[in-house]
Amino acid sequence: MSQLFAIALHGGAGTIAPETMTEEKYAAYTQGLKAALDAGYAVLERGGASLDAVQAAVMSLEDCPLFNAGKGAVFNSTGGHEMDAALMEGSTKRAGAVAGVTAARNPVQAARTVMEHTEHVLLSGPGADQFVREQGLPIEGPDYFFNQFRYDQWKEAQAEGRVQLDHSEKKMGTVGAVALDQSGNLAAATSTGGMTNKQYGRVGDSPLIGAGTWADNHTCAISCTGHGELFIRSVVAYDIACLMEYKGLSLADACHKVVMDKLVKTGGEGGLVAIDQAGNIAMPFNSSGMYRAARKSDGTENIAIYR
Amino acid sequence: MSQLFAIALHGGAGTIAPETMTEEKYAAYTQGLKAALDAGYAVLERGGASLDAVQAAVMSLEDCPLFNAGKGAVFNSTGGHEMDAALMEGSTKRAGAVAGVTAARNPVQAARTVMEHTEHVLLSGPGADQFVREQGLPIEGPDYFFNQFRYDQWKEAQAEGRVQLDHSEKKMGTVGAVALDQSGNLAAATSTGGMTNKQYGRVGDSPLIGAGTWADNHTCAISCTGHGELFIRSVVAYDIACLMEYKGLSLADACHKVVMDKLVKTGGEGGLVAIDQAGNIAMPFNSSGMYRAARKSDGTENIAIYR
Repeated sequence: MSQLFAIALHGGAGTIAPETMTEEKYAAYTQGLKAALDAGYAVLERGGASLDAVQAAVMSLEDCPLFNAGKGAVFNSTGGHEMDAALMEGSTKRAGAVAGVTAARNPVQAARTVMEHTEHVLLSGPGADQFVREQGLPIEGPDYFFNQFRYDQWKEAQAEGRVQLDHSEKKMGTVGAVALDQSGNLAAATSTGGMTNKQYGRVGDSPLIGAGTWADNHTCAISCTGHGELFIRSVVAYDIACLMEYKGLSLADACHKVVMDKLVKTGGEGGLVAIDQAGNIAMPFNSSGMYRAARKSDGTENIAIYR
Repeated sequence: MSQLFAIALHGGAGTIAPETMTEEKYAAYTQGLKAALDAGYAVLERGGASLDAVQAAVMSLEDCPLFNAGKGAVFNSTGGHEMDAALMEGSTKRAGAVAGVTAARNPVQAARTVMEHTEHVLLSGPGADQFVREQGLPIEGPDYFFNQFRYDQWKEAQAEGRVQLDHSEKKMGTVGAVALDQSGNLAAATSTGGMTNKQYGRVGDSPLIGAGTWADNHTCAISCTGHGELFIRSVVAYDIACLMEYKGLSLADACHKVVMDKLVKTGGEGGLVAIDQAGNIAMPFNSSGMYRAARKSDGTENIAIYR
């Protein structure tokens, strides 16, 4: 028998007020998470690489207008879209990332291309946009990224002069996935549209290796969602890996320590999905909810928003 | 008596071929390092904050055309200059950084301003340039950054279609400083012009908190110089902090483990300067040389290039 394989993903965390959650919205979010889970799981099931699985799952979330990444990206302070993404391969610790891309249909695909077709890890801004065009990756115009709800969010945030993480309900808008494949390799990917009305050029934790995204076969694969600045200052993803490697903590204990204790002390609201080589999955969050889903080859499946 | 205070800094690491090092060049580099050391030490001596000391030292190095940061920044693939910088305060773990700024006279000053005048940690590209202008920070035109030696380097690299870390002699061009002040607070700062002929938009480890720059009073302050992509994938600076905090290693042992063992295994050439709250300083490098200097209030002073 081949080894256990599994995938876990998130569609953002935050204060997801139950009173604004209608049955229709709940069903739509659940469906979006399920579609991404299936896309990633299918890759693993046919013996594909975890890196391909997390990319497939994140591309599905990027294509869904409900999540703040790709098509559903929020508006920045200039009324544009600036998207960040990263992915990392646990067997080689190779990584690729883009920050501030404005036209890529799938920023995570751009991150993959940086990893495979450059000597670099992170490309940013107009240089990253140029790279996306030169590589012939699918690009889209403002119409594709336009969404009345996001536009109204932005106008409201702009009027009040504030930067917000995503929805009126303070959802942290990021999507991400982690996976373990049949060869025992881990991978992680993260993608985001950032914060509504964010300052032009702001980069959060998502595209930063060690902060929002991490994968190493010896420890774990992690994708974070939350208040990016505080996640950067705590090097959240790599901190979990270090607690496992240097202190011998289990994945669950390391995740709990970082998300429910260390981050809480800094005011760092959010959560993450994590997986280790044994197929253990952790999906901790210190906010009131996190859009999340997981499926293992042992038959367990789980899709949830609240605790 | 007030507590021990100290500062350490670097002006880049790499294959600094002794045969190309003339007496004049050696004296000029030494003088550049000494000027920066004095600038930082003076702040500490009058009871100033370590954050101000590392900023003063790095600004001095940025103003010196010999080092690849600020005035001496190398040319990127489009013949422009894109500079990155970061700094971090060990007492609060606040941090600020810029990536891809093209006109700031002192990128580390821009990083400080991001830390103090925005809710963000990292601003990148045109948005970062716009921020620098809006904040009224000193900006310079291409004439200021022009340097015949760098220009010839770039033309040569372009002709050969390669990206190089800095000088013909493969020096890793980054500058940085770490300090401990009389109040027992640590700080770190790093600044770079990146790699000659680098892809437009490439971001290295210098502005990434945890990779090239880190400060936490509980462990250490670190500024790295080397092959940025490999430093990012190893989260070098934070890895040292974790080895101290979670495994109980001394600063020296943690630095040795990461620079002389872990990085060497990945081919990650370079080095770093590090300091802890007891005033211990480590300046390890796995390349043939690293421009470096250190001074402590106990009277010890050290300026060196080779082993």
